[in-house]
Amino acid sequence: MKATATPLDPRRVHLKGGLLGERQEINRSVTVPVIMEKCRSTGRVEAILHQWDGREETRPHPFWDSDIGKSIESAAYALMNRRDEALEADIDEIVDRMVSAQEPDGYYNAYYQACEPPEARWTNLYYMHELYCMGHLIEGAVAYHQATGKHAFLDMMCRYADLACSLFLEGGRLYGGYCGHPEIELALVRLCRETGQERYLKLARTFIDQRGRRPWYFETESLRRGVDTEKTANLKRHLKYFLPARGPFAEYQAHVPVREQTEPVGHAVRAMYLLAGAADVAALCDDDGLYHAVRSVWDATVSTQMAITGGIGTASDGERFTFAYDLPNEITYHETCASVALMMAGLRLLSFGPDTAVADAMERTLYNTILASVSLSGDRFFYANYLDVCPERFRQASKATIDKMSAERLPWFNVACCPPNVSRLTGALGQYVASEGEGGALYVHLYAAGDILWRDGAHPLRLRVETEYPWSGRITLHAEGETEEQAVLWLRIPGWCRRYEARVNGQPIAQAPVKGYLPIERRWQTGDCVELELEMQPVWMEADPRVRQDGGKVALMCGPVVYCLEEKDNGACLHDLAVCPSQAEVSRETIRLGNGAEVPALSFPGLSYHGAPWADGALYRPVEERAVPRRLLAVPYFAWGNRGFGEMIVWMNRR
Amino acid sequence: MKATATPLDPRRVHLKGGLLGERQEINRSVTVPVIMEKCRSTGRVEAILHQWDGREETRPHPFWDSDIGKSIESAAYALMNRRDEALEADIDEIVDRMVSAQEPDGYYNAYYQACEPPEARWTNLYYMHELYCMGHLIEGAVAYHQATGKHAFLDMMCRYADLACSLFLEGGRLYGGYCGHPEIELALVRLCRETGQERYLKLARTFIDQRGRRPWYFETESLRRGVDTEKTANLKRHLKYFLPARGPFAEYQAHVPVREQTEPVGHAVRAMYLLAGAADVAALCDDDGLYHAVRSVWDATVSTQMAITGGIGTASDGERFTFAYDLPNEITYHETCASVALMMAGLRLLSFGPDTAVADAMERTLYNTILASVSLSGDRFFYANYLDVCPERFRQASKATIDKMSAERLPWFNVACCPPNVSRLTGALGQYVASEGEGGALYVHLYAAGDILWRDGAHPLRLRVETEYPWSGRITLHAEGETEEQAVLWLRIPGWCRRYEARVNGQPIAQAPVKGYLPIERRWQTGDCVELELEMQPVWMEADPRVRQDGGKVALMCGPVVYCLEEKDNGACLHDLAVCPSQAEVSRETIRLGNGAEVPALSFPGLSYHGAPWADGALYRPVEERAVPRRLLAVPYFAWGNRGFGEMIVWMNRR
Repeated sequence: MKATATPLDPRRVHLKGGLLGERQEINRSVTVPVIMEKCRSTGRVEAILHQWDGREETRPHPFWDSDIGKSIESAAYALMNRRDEALEADIDEIVDRMVSAQEPDGYYNAYYQACEPPEARWTNLYYMHELYCMGHLIEGAVAYHQATGKHAFLDMMCRYADLACSLFLEGGRLYGGYCGHPEIELALVRLCRETGQERYLKLARTFIDQRGRRPWYFETESLRRGVDTEKTANLKRHLKYFLPARGPFAEYQAHVPVREQTEPVGHAVRAMYLLAGAADVAALCDDDGLYHAVRSVWDATVSTQMAITGGIGTASDGERFTFAYDLPNEITYHETCASVALMMAGLRLLSFGPDTAVADAMERTLYNTILASVSLSGDRFFYANYLDVCPERFRQASKATIDKMSAERLPWFNVACCPPNVSRLTGALGQYVASEGEGGALYVHLYAAGDILWRDGAHPLRLRVETEYPWSGRITLHAEGETEEQAVLWLRIPGWCRRYEARVNGQPIAQAPVKGYLPIERRWQTGDCVELELEMQPVWMEADPRVRQDGGKVALMCGPVVYCLEEKDNGACLHDLAVCPSQAEVSRETIRLGNGAEVPALSFPGLSYHGAPWADGALYRPVEERAVPRRLLAVPYFAWGNRGFGEMIVWMNRR
Repeated sequence: MKATATPLDPRRVHLKGGLLGERQEINRSVTVPVIMEKCRSTGRVEAILHQWDGREETRPHPFWDSDIGKSIESAAYALMNRRDEALEADIDEIVDRMVSAQEPDGYYNAYYQACEPPEARWTNLYYMHELYCMGHLIEGAVAYHQATGKHAFLDMMCRYADLACSLFLEGGRLYGGYCGHPEIELALVRLCRETGQERYLKLARTFIDQRGRRPWYFETESLRRGVDTEKTANLKRHLKYFLPARGPFAEYQAHVPVREQTEPVGHAVRAMYLLAGAADVAALCDDDGLYHAVRSVWDATVSTQMAITGGIGTASDGERFTFAYDLPNEITYHETCASVALMMAGLRLLSFGPDTAVADAMERTLYNTILASVSLSGDRFFYANYLDVCPERFRQASKATIDKMSAERLPWFNVACCPPNVSRLTGALGQYVASEGEGGALYVHLYAAGDILWRDGAHPLRLRVETEYPWSGRITLHAEGETEEQAVLWLRIPGWCRRYEARVNGQPIAQAPVKGYLPIERRWQTGDCVELELEMQPVWMEADPRVRQDGGKVALMCGPVVYCLEEKDNGACLHDLAVCPSQAEVSRETIRLGNGAEVPALSFPGLSYHGAPWADGALYRPVEERAVPRRLLAVPYFAWGNRGFGEMIVWMNRR
């Protein structure tokens, strides 16, 4: 399977208005300043060049560098959209600090440099995230270079990556090692693409090749440290409850070589970053076996372990996958970062010949879990993304322990990976809109109002996209510019769409879609107009009967957007409600949320089994048929929880 | 509220045949030998007089004494039913060991004597279970004395209890202390009843009075040990997830004084043992305030936190109550011991004027969770009692960590409180059948084939009970013997029964029940025959709509017995099934289980939403109305899991 397409540079897509454009603008104007401020106020910036005094409360956290990396990356996308000198100055100051802190051999890690002796470096790849932090800093450096042309940060990260090459490539002292938390692989490929230096790709490939080989590097290095890995507290904790019995290191996808992996296991964020990096390596090295392993894990993920909202990784203990068709709605996890990482993996898979099965899963994730993870106001975040919330469960918990389990969006977290991660994804959404294929073809994956620079250079060709997607299935693309020869525009027909009409300059398009992409080949010129009408009706959905948690339940979707019931609109006891899908005709409405934003909503007839709680005393009683008809109102899942804290459900009882 | 009734001495009730009689006989012939053998083969007996060599693997467990106590108690009930010299010799040998190990001041604790220096005793009442172990040994000693007349064990425990009196009664060195795990209170009351020594009651009352007072004893003693309680690993573990924020020590019901408690909190077994001991003290000390606190916690337990099967304590983390109407079916706990302790608390509450609301909850627990917790063969046990089992969840777990979370009955457990506990309850079921009221009245709570010695002495009066209860609602009681004056027989009309007929010697009884007990007053003589016909039909049940986990679901009961669906009878994907209660007419059937036992079953029409798993690939799809009618078969919940390991559900989707 050859890679035949590449994602567009985010600078070639401008989102304007529309849902994605609005979210991206709020990300730029609110979220980016928030995360940059948090990086300082929480000590993450101060930790650079830190002289640690040995007190626990002033100790930098080993993952803080990754937050800096992601925050700068996110800020870089914001800068691509609009110059902001103050923001640039802020970043330059951080970069200066890091460059000053970098050691002569290229090493840079705020935590290790402040808190550990030099000989401790690289001795615990299993747990200590050094390469992971390097990866996020590389991504930040590449994006900042693209956004500003400044290369101090990029140069610094090249020096650091060169150090890694000298250590981990064949012949190096640490050859055979790889990171407990994948991410460095995809970052090295980005660095290779930005600098043209093949050694970074070679190192990414080496990490992929070594992973899961026996003897396990994680075991070897812990024996070197004189520690029995089995006895490290962390490993024991991860192995404690309901872990797939796939042998050691499955938690970190290192139980068997990557090419032998066929299903998602372990920590979900790690699993998806690994897929992304492996897909990159497969594409650039034309590695068919690796591609098939990646695709196989991806397919098993989206077809057996993905919530209808796109959330993945249901176990909060270990932040991990459990087993096929195990998709609890209330006692679940679905970390925001796992969805971000899934988007990144999907983006890379789309390089291997676009396939709407891949894009469908990405779209499901984007319009539901990803958008939900940030408040409409842009300054509060979910770490966990539930499909069923009972507020009492959280009210009973001691506040100190909720943090990342919270069902209310929080301004920040103790381990704060998610806010900058969703922010950098939102900033880079342009990348996800379309990719460039062979022969100058363009594949459009996501429909969002704005414009796409299809061809650059002396004869630029732009597509101006007009649409209210995802609230309407009508999309119009206006060409501006010309092509000298025939070029193919491929338009994605989403998997959820059962009927569509497409016209170019008013003429119906006769071609059939290929893997869900409709080809339109012509010599393009200004004034060409493509109209696509995707039939988009509210649809009652059911889950595969093997998903026991959704048995006897239905969910409501319209296009890619999943709807949910909130207590605010439907009263408490949402589990006492039911709908009969064949009789529940759905009407479109609009509701106004707290911040004044209007959001489409759907109303339909349902019933309440009891109407009201019954008399006190008897917890159980013989069934009485006293169902009370009720008009129910569902709001987009991503908009839930923006009007106070109450019950919420996605899956409703099916009558 | 005055105590007006006392439970019957178990020797006055003989169960013969019938479900309870059969289970009691299997308990005597299989379970008791199993637990006695396990006490030896697992080192529990050897731990007595143990010279510990300091190696972790030979270290006795701090709770082992309690297993010895419960096992002897259970064996004692078996001996009441049938002499068994080998069993007695076995116990006598254990008692001899314990007596030899007892210190001159009366102290006895196998763990402390082997593993800790003398000064460590009584320094960690919070966690170390010394008084709890003493309590179980006292119960064993009392029962063994009653069964055999031998008093070596009883004397030993009196000496030990006297030591406790000298330490914990007012003026004692440890006055103000009480056990982290209640149980000693009810045991001391039993010891008082057996020996007539009021000081034991006084000590029980002191423990109740001190509990929850400020400053908290648990804090005081940990400061004395130089340990900050907040920092003990155990406490931290317990406080970690979703703990009711009721302040420290709520886990052990010591957050506020017992008289101020109004709802169940914390560890469920502790909560129920505390209720039992407090009810005893309230009865003997005529303590109205204490009674009302007990009744209030009991009522809140059974009306807001009890599964339809009678299970209580839904959180496996901390083995504890969560909050009102939180009753998960799959990710739950319902420890067997909690149900045993609930039975014991209920038994004592029945002393305050019988009330079928109390007996109903006990009967629900007995016929469902309690009976289910032992295999039909008598030699395998549940620690956790789920209402919904997905075998894959357990197959994915590492074997070593399942143990007490197992959804398959196991021969024994690492912490093995449950097997001897359910065994002693089963052996003592006679106590639960009836109690003796003022003026020689008899209250019959449970209907079970056998006979009851209503009056002892020169003019004995017996009731011979003929019934197939709980498989039939027809009960006949034959009097044998005479009374000189009028005496009232009170027959319980269970809460689940909506219509009944009662006759004495063929004449209808006109009286109305009082709190669910029907009074029949007469001069009794041989030949008197009371016939009670409780209408017992299969009934579809629903839960209070505030129980979100049962929303849109129904369960099937017949009399006190809850039924469930097993994969064995209904195929996999039980959550894909649904029933329409108003159209699901139920037929009675009989099925044969693995061991040849026949058990009543219920069949009814239902449907499968999908009939079969659908084509691979799409996890979600638009609803199709393709329900396939299916005949479903439900078996008694207590009999589930006796034919291999498969799915099981109690609550079925309501169509």
